[in-house]
Amino acid sequence: MYNYKDLKNFVKGFFIRIGCKSDHAEIISEVFITAELRNIPSHGLIRLIDYYNLWKAGRINVNPNIKIIHETPSTAVVDGDNAIGMVAAYKSMNIAIEKAKTAGTGWVATMGSNHFGIAGFYAMMALKHDMIGITLTNANPLVAPTFSLSRLLGTNPIAVAIPAGKYPPFVADFATTPIARGKLAIAELKGEKVLYGYLQDVDGKPSDDPSVLKKGGAMLPLGGDYEHGSHKGYCLSAIVDIFSGVLSGANFGPFIPPSVAFLDNNKEQVGKGTGHFFGAMRIDAFQPAEIFKNRMDKWIETFKNAKNIPNKPAVMIPGDPERIAEEKNKKEGIKILPEIEKTLKEIAKELNIKF
Amino acid sequence: MYNYKDLKNFVKGFFIRIGCKSDHAEIISEVFITAELRNIPSHGLIRLIDYYNLWKAGRINVNPNIKIIHETPSTAVVDGDNAIGMVAAYKSMNIAIEKAKTAGTGWVATMGSNHFGIAGFYAMMALKHDMIGITLTNANPLVAPTFSLSRLLGTNPIAVAIPAGKYPPFVADFATTPIARGKLAIAELKGEKVLYGYLQDVDGKPSDDPSVLKKGGAMLPLGGDYEHGSHKGYCLSAIVDIFSGVLSGANFGPFIPPSVAFLDNNKEQVGKGTGHFFGAMRIDAFQPAEIFKNRMDKWIETFKNAKNIPNKPAVMIPGDPERIAEEKNKKEGIKILPEIEKTLKEIAKELNIKF
Repeated sequence: MYNYKDLKNFVKGFFIRIGCKSDHAEIISEVFITAELRNIPSHGLIRLIDYYNLWKAGRINVNPNIKIIHETPSTAVVDGDNAIGMVAAYKSMNIAIEKAKTAGTGWVATMGSNHFGIAGFYAMMALKHDMIGITLTNANPLVAPTFSLSRLLGTNPIAVAIPAGKYPPFVADFATTPIARGKLAIAELKGEKVLYGYLQDVDGKPSDDPSVLKKGGAMLPLGGDYEHGSHKGYCLSAIVDIFSGVLSGANFGPFIPPSVAFLDNNKEQVGKGTGHFFGAMRIDAFQPAEIFKNRMDKWIETFKNAKNIPNKPAVMIPGDPERIAEEKNKKEGIKILPEIEKTLKEIAKELNIKF
Repeated sequence: MYNYKDLKNFVKGFFIRIGCKSDHAEIISEVFITAELRNIPSHGLIRLIDYYNLWKAGRINVNPNIKIIHETPSTAVVDGDNAIGMVAAYKSMNIAIEKAKTAGTGWVATMGSNHFGIAGFYAMMALKHDMIGITLTNANPLVAPTFSLSRLLGTNPIAVAIPAGKYPPFVADFATTPIARGKLAIAELKGEKVLYGYLQDVDGKPSDDPSVLKKGGAMLPLGGDYEHGSHKGYCLSAIVDIFSGVLSGANFGPFIPPSVAFLDNNKEQVGKGTGHFFGAMRIDAFQPAEIFKNRMDKWIETFKNAKNIPNKPAVMIPGDPERIAEEKNKKEGIKILPEIEKTLKEIAKELNIKF
């Protein structure tokens, strides 16, 4: 078990060592450790090696000049200058928040970025300003639209954070697929099968074998198959892709650069890097914040108190499981898988930093 | 087969007859007929009787004073004054579009409204202004959140319309459930079973019997069960409910008034009527419209040309099936089910209008 502060210092030190400014390294390490604390390790330390290899391959810019290239009172387009995703995303969300202060809402489309960790982190930045925060991002293609053999979409997550009063905020943060990519990878490592409804094989047939992803298969959109509404999951993922990629000037669909160095970029590029989309809506642009928060408390109470199915968990309020994990992990420490530990130690040795 | 113009005139005449102003009746009939043309009859003429009965019961206002009750440069809250939903929605979407002209984007939360027909109609209003249109609405509770026995959410649809260049626009319009309520009603009428993954019975057990909805059962969110991501469908539906209901000052969750007169309103009301949420984003608030449209054409081409699974339909672009139906039905006429025809004739006779 590791103390989260020690881990954060390690991550920060790593990014400073590869050339990031201290304030950038601070942001990146904060997002990394928040993923670990919130029990989303698929977006945490396991990915340090990916950024390291992208940096070694000269495919990521540790000293970016992130700037607004177009704006109106409530919108902006940000060029991330090939930054590490967290840095471009953090700056973009702050621009959305600033816009909302004067225009009521702020909406920022970001291009020239890279993998930014957990989407929920940026949505939650809005909360302390009494704003609703929204984050979308496209990602490298793993998902086949309904009836498609080709992988054209990422797991394209949606995060929405909404302030409440006496209750903790509502924080939804979910991929637009039935299951996370990371969980499939773990099943594959263990040699386990998975449920039908997650995957199709190279011929487009339903599959329960997570290794099909390495053999020309694909993940399915939320819904699974057409009869269970996969075209709705496809629509949702497409909207995330268009807002993040087409509207920002980034790549979209199958053209999105991979977030790992062992895969080459798509030969055809239709924009710059990966794209994100951020929104901030001031609560009092709609109604007094206190009234809204009381109403959210009523919403949360109604759902919390719903009669639940016998022998099933209680009805969850989005964000509760992650918040409970965060409180626990802050006290008890963060567990790191032995393989990840080994990789981190190797990186530390190679760069002569302390782990 | 009926000519769509004749049907529209009938619907318009009906709403004028029950006291609507001519311009309001024009809007309502346009939304009704657009639903029929786009092959979404569950939101078309079948619902005329519902509005008629709500009117007879004095539960709907045919002469509403719809007004903005709060606003910022990019936002507004609209009080629909218990209007027929189409009238409140049409006015609200136009306010969002006007806001977007100066602020870049416009966002309107509407309370005191009623069932507004197809969500896609209002999202599509943005297209001719070179804007992206967004529509959300909550609806009377039929859906149980993951692990819940209680019905706390509507089928809460999401519609997003995005302009393209040489191709028709991208128009996604979908309920946040695996299947539409209307399709379950038809299966029940025919005495047919449905697939598992749509419904649970009164004890929360998976069911294939559409009649469970009348026996304390519930529809399931997109994803179906927890293992297939129903908590993501629940999150999505919850976001639609909070934006439409909590933010606007309308009812939300289980408190939303039914859209039929044979069900009483929930004894507890937490706001006014049903709620909607509308968004309009000017394309050139992000990038020049022509460049964006070329990029959308590239997106559409990429997905249209995807290799499809053998013996399955081609990969669909959201909005294409409805647009093709609209073109066909405009030429060939609209088919009305005999039961609906009978009801419409009875209404016409009762009100002494021509069918």
